[in-house]
Amino acid sequence: MNNLPGKTVERLSAYRRVLLIYLTKGRDHIFSHDLAKLLYITAVQVRRDVMLIGNIGMHKNGYNVKELIARIGEVLDSKEGQKVAVVGFGYLGKAITGYFAGKRSKLIVLASFDINTKKVGAKVNGVKCFHINHLETIIRNKKITIAILTVPPDVATEVTNRLVEAGIKGILNFTTVPLKVPQGVYLEEYDMITSVEKVAFFVKKNDEE
Amino acid sequence: MNNLPGKTVERLSAYRRVLLIYLTKGRDHIFSHDLAKLLYITAVQVRRDVMLIGNIGMHKNGYNVKELIARIGEVLDSKEGQKVAVVGFGYLGKAITGYFAGKRSKLIVLASFDINTKKVGAKVNGVKCFHINHLETIIRNKKITIAILTVPPDVATEVTNRLVEAGIKGILNFTTVPLKVPQGVYLEEYDMITSVEKVAFFVKKNDEE
Repeated sequence: MNNLPGKTVERLSAYRRVLLIYLTKGRDHIFSHDLAKLLYITAVQVRRDVMLIGNIGMHKNGYNVKELIARIGEVLDSKEGQKVAVVGFGYLGKAITGYFAGKRSKLIVLASFDINTKKVGAKVNGVKCFHINHLETIIRNKKITIAILTVPPDVATEVTNRLVEAGIKGILNFTTVPLKVPQGVYLEEYDMITSVEKVAFFVKKNDEE
Repeated sequence: MNNLPGKTVERLSAYRRVLLIYLTKGRDHIFSHDLAKLLYITAVQVRRDVMLIGNIGMHKNGYNVKELIARIGEVLDSKEGQKVAVVGFGYLGKAITGYFAGKRSKLIVLASFDINTKKVGAKVNGVKCFHINHLETIIRNKKITIAILTVPPDVATEVTNRLVEAGIKGILNFTTVPLKVPQGVYLEEYDMITSVEKVAFFVKKNDEE
């Protein structure tokens, strides 16, 4: 189960997300083609992914939604839960902190950090902001293994080195600076400007055609 | 030039981003392997992409940085500029608005929208928040063609339909709800929860190995 490719992991995460919404609508079963429709992908893709994580019975009304959510959880989540820090407590750091709160029981944002003393002590959804001076101590003490990076570009590399040194094992980089991490640390990068520029390019392209 | 694949567009955007930082350090030429190093990709990839957009001379000190930035701009940007609206003025909407301000002369965030009357009139980096009731009028009047969607999930589909109806040609969807848009409208989706769950999965995986 650990050999799932990144793209499958992304789809499983997406299945769970839409299934959780589906569940709130009082529906307890779903057909593969209905789940596929919610994500605008093919039913074949859904069935292949579900087969890959195994043990999901297909009832006459489709998959049991709670069972499928639970199975995805077994595959994606760590049993003990994983602890997350948000580094940089600007709008983006706050957005991510707020976004996550209470949404995933196995992923807990435990702390946020900022260099601005005015932000220290502030809270978003119960998550407190600490001064970045305490980064290493708090990460070690709270056994945080995942960091979400939203600091300004000029300090991105330095903060990353400190995170790795403090024992962080996975980083989601939202800064505009590409990062390098040692083996054994997983890095995922996302740049909003690139996404907007991509949309802009294809709008321009469609317009010219 | 319009047939560039999405991945190439993403890399060109990334090249420009790091080249703009490089330029501020007072350097006017760069070798392909140095540009590659900044992005942790291969020099072959850089040279292939640069060849694809053509007309960039290789001097004895490498590419002329300003020339390369200008050429990327010719390829990616629309001459007249493109106008952007941010829909949803929570932390994420504000983060994006602030992030963009002044960074790309050809992509201008002209307005943001929210349903919360308390936010109406507020500004981030000079971009004003309007009530969502005025969405269609303002988009049409200001000739906005790109929308960045950061609204709550339960209204994502409805707001998207309104955006398309108002003439929006490209949407960057940051909500947790997958969207469908008619042909001729370009859609790019990004879900933060998926990214964090992906990092968490690979941290767990590395931990178990």
